[in-house]
Amino acid sequence: MMPHDSVNHGNAKAVVLLSGGLDSATCLAIAKNQGYQCFGLSFDYGQRHYSELHAAARVAESMQLARHMVIRIDMSGIGGSALTDMSLAVPEHKTAGIPITYVPARNTVFLSYALAWAEVLKANSIFIGVNALDYSGYPDCRPEFIAAFEHMANLATRVGLEGSQLKIQIPLMQMNKADIIKTGLSLGVDYSLTVSCYQADAEGHACGRCDSCRFRSKGFSEAGVVDPTRYQHR
Amino acid sequence: MMPHDSVNHGNAKAVVLLSGGLDSATCLAIAKNQGYQCFGLSFDYGQRHYSELHAAARVAESMQLARHMVIRIDMSGIGGSALTDMSLAVPEHKTAGIPITYVPARNTVFLSYALAWAEVLKANSIFIGVNALDYSGYPDCRPEFIAAFEHMANLATRVGLEGSQLKIQIPLMQMNKADIIKTGLSLGVDYSLTVSCYQADAEGHACGRCDSCRFRSKGFSEAGVVDPTRYQHR
Repeated sequence: MMPHDSVNHGNAKAVVLLSGGLDSATCLAIAKNQGYQCFGLSFDYGQRHYSELHAAARVAESMQLARHMVIRIDMSGIGGSALTDMSLAVPEHKTAGIPITYVPARNTVFLSYALAWAEVLKANSIFIGVNALDYSGYPDCRPEFIAAFEHMANLATRVGLEGSQLKIQIPLMQMNKADIIKTGLSLGVDYSLTVSCYQADAEGHACGRCDSCRFRSKGFSEAGVVDPTRYQHR
Repeated sequence: MMPHDSVNHGNAKAVVLLSGGLDSATCLAIAKNQGYQCFGLSFDYGQRHYSELHAAARVAESMQLARHMVIRIDMSGIGGSALTDMSLAVPEHKTAGIPITYVPARNTVFLSYALAWAEVLKANSIFIGVNALDYSGYPDCRPEFIAAFEHMANLATRVGLEGSQLKIQIPLMQMNKADIIKTGLSLGVDYSLTVSCYQADAEGHACGRCDSCRFRSKGFSEAGVVDPTRYQHR
């Protein structure tokens, strides 16, 4: 249940993708616990759940990052997702196949920026909180995608040319939501700071009905701990 | 010398990365000549040579693209390159190793956005005018990088999950600058519209001294054609 090793990585640097949600907060706690000096990276991509970014800032502050950077990216011209296109509704029931909340190539774009920053910082790791079990059916959350990105990343950069290796670290990949929550709690994560909902309101209150809310709520229930999520209608 | 095949790809769509320079204009002409419906993609990334974007718009107009999109991306917070950091000087002589004009992970970031757009458009190709011969020593211009990106891209997306394949097309990879120019001229490219200089002025006049200018000038000379570049000091 505890996927974080106990090796201390001293002053090694890591870029940690930080969405403001439960998974990335846990991922950050694991990276910190491994001794990495952590650089948090968040994206303002016109997401419907904008309160995620406020949550990311709260998490970054509570975990005392070396730096937290928010990069504004514009995927609205590209379209194609309910998370960035306000004319598409977020589904509130389980749907077949890849859901409409999938943002095309989102993790590829996010990891590409993380790669650029890692290269400048001379960081040897990028942490991303993707998860193959409780995920929503997104192709870019699969372990084979991450392995392919890592291979590409080591050919893309100066670091790769000079022979050192960049790792894309995915400590949550094989954990279920309950295990993620238990791990995070053991490392002191305050989940009341996090927002997972696809359509949270401006204050970060969750809808309780979207895929992301349902996975999260089930996770707290299965972990046997109180759900600290602030919901809209309770 | 003519790397463009004569197969007509009918209504197949392609996203073509368009910098405003000589290589990408040629790459676009090749894609059009192969029958692709072309969607041009340019980036406003705070580049020093901003007149590139005006050139990209002129090229897009002259070649009658299905659409030309400019995405604003912010790599200034990441730093590390003379092309985005005004405190670093662009070198005017050949330098050893990877030059300071290298923007960390730039092609990875550019191709990631192209991938997102290709997925939404259901385009089966992305064209990028990278070149292994006359390039400036950038790691992300090598054929092995492109192959790794293509592999990753097909795992990253809905398209890949559904079994169809996306190709990253690199028609210029093995051509020298003179061959690129001869090919472009045979396809009707007007190189006077293009700007290659790393430090062109606001009107697109080239310095004639940076790496990019020197490769370009040598190309016209070796192709035995008149150089239509507008220089600053002539």
